[in-house]
Amino acid sequence: MTRFAITLEYDGRPFMGWQHQDHGPSVQQSVERAIKTITRQDIRVFAAGRTDAGVHALGMRAHFDLETRLTPFRLMEGLNAGLRPDPVAVLTCDEVDEEWHARFSCIGRRYVYKIINRRAPLTLDKGQAWRVVRPLDVTAMHQAAQCLVGQHDFTTFRSTQCQAQSPVKTLDSISVSRFGEEIEVEVAARSFLHHQVRSMVGSLALVGEGKWTAQDLQDALEARDRKALGHNAPPDGLYFVEAFYPPSETE
Amino acid sequence: MTRFAITLEYDGRPFMGWQHQDHGPSVQQSVERAIKTITRQDIRVFAAGRTDAGVHALGMRAHFDLETRLTPFRLMEGLNAGLRPDPVAVLTCDEVDEEWHARFSCIGRRYVYKIINRRAPLTLDKGQAWRVVRPLDVTAMHQAAQCLVGQHDFTTFRSTQCQAQSPVKTLDSISVSRFGEEIEVEVAARSFLHHQVRSMVGSLALVGEGKWTAQDLQDALEARDRKALGHNAPPDGLYFVEAFYPPSETE
Repeated sequence: MTRFAITLEYDGRPFMGWQHQDHGPSVQQSVERAIKTITRQDIRVFAAGRTDAGVHALGMRAHFDLETRLTPFRLMEGLNAGLRPDPVAVLTCDEVDEEWHARFSCIGRRYVYKIINRRAPLTLDKGQAWRVVRPLDVTAMHQAAQCLVGQHDFTTFRSTQCQAQSPVKTLDSISVSRFGEEIEVEVAARSFLHHQVRSMVGSLALVGEGKWTAQDLQDALEARDRKALGHNAPPDGLYFVEAFYPPSETE
Repeated sequence: MTRFAITLEYDGRPFMGWQHQDHGPSVQQSVERAIKTITRQDIRVFAAGRTDAGVHALGMRAHFDLETRLTPFRLMEGLNAGLRPDPVAVLTCDEVDEEWHARFSCIGRRYVYKIINRRAPLTLDKGQAWRVVRPLDVTAMHQAAQCLVGQHDFTTFRSTQCQAQSPVKTLDSISVSRFGEEIEVEVAARSFLHHQVRSMVGSLALVGEGKWTAQDLQDALEARDRKALGHNAPPDGLYFVEAFYPPSETE
């Protein structure tokens, strides 16, 4: 039995999210079906993060155990062929130690949230970004966001369906940058609560529009109450970018 | 009667191209239908360039004449509402002089061709870039491309269906740059022959793969023969970026 670690890129639009769902296709199902196509085995795949419906990934990490004589390269090629025409691609595939776990060994996760700040509807970026019509003050957003860094009770920014045991998380960093009409919010933490990134981005947009001050954001955080939430940003703009592991465990 | 100039962004995937076609939807049809929805008038729209099926635009310019009391801003808002759900957006709308013509007043056009240079299939960029698997030498591509700059008979890089009177065109500039796995070929000229950009990019990819030398590209150009063409790049990666007009005529 060999444990394989893979890096996945996917367009979240046609999926109900990473995890198996009764009511629609999932990324997990696509990958497991591709494995079955080439190995005829029913294999379970574990990912670093369980992205929601419509959320994308540029570098999701996942693993699975397989009895095979295929090299990692051949396995990757076979998976990419088997995944067609689903918008899921295997970017890397490596043999890893059997102790290595995509979810439980993961010590850090990085997301990017992409906003297009303009009046006109989206065309090429439809479903791949959140359009915000009112002009956003990116400097105000970036400065206000810094109150979220560190260890906090993030109940305000947590979905009511969140299954985490504790609402206390440590946000390592958050930055807001503008590139023309595109705004990127980049966040990093060991782990996130359900809807945490989208909830933080939605509230930051209120700051950018001038509807909320930095103090309003701080008050919302301290309220530890979902009802204090400004707004939940849509899944369209959210990308799981990178998962981090202790160096010794990755290879 | 007022002449309006608009800037359009569109995702070329669902269209048979800019121009009206009997066998499928066109961008022109979408825009003319949106105008009819808000004005009940059958109006003809003229564009700076007639992009092919699957080719995108970030800043296509177009114009039309309309009897209306709508301000340019209200007209733009109405068009964007009427265009839904087609992936076409009006980015700007202005009144222009009745002499101003989107196609005939245009003195320069800029295109970008986007290549993703990697092994894995495309997911988020599917239909919006050309995936080239073999590693491309961007420096070699850029250097070889310079022989195309200037006035030449571009018969080699011209579609057999091209309706231009002469195959002689002047290429103002061409540059090839890499940003990670993404490669951009940027070209500017007063005007282009049908398939000229895709034909040049296809041949440049052969140079990047090491199958063609810079001399081979030069020989192909000088052959003035379509059969000397290396390869025609697919429409997926092509974007009409900008149209230029004499300053006095734009407003």
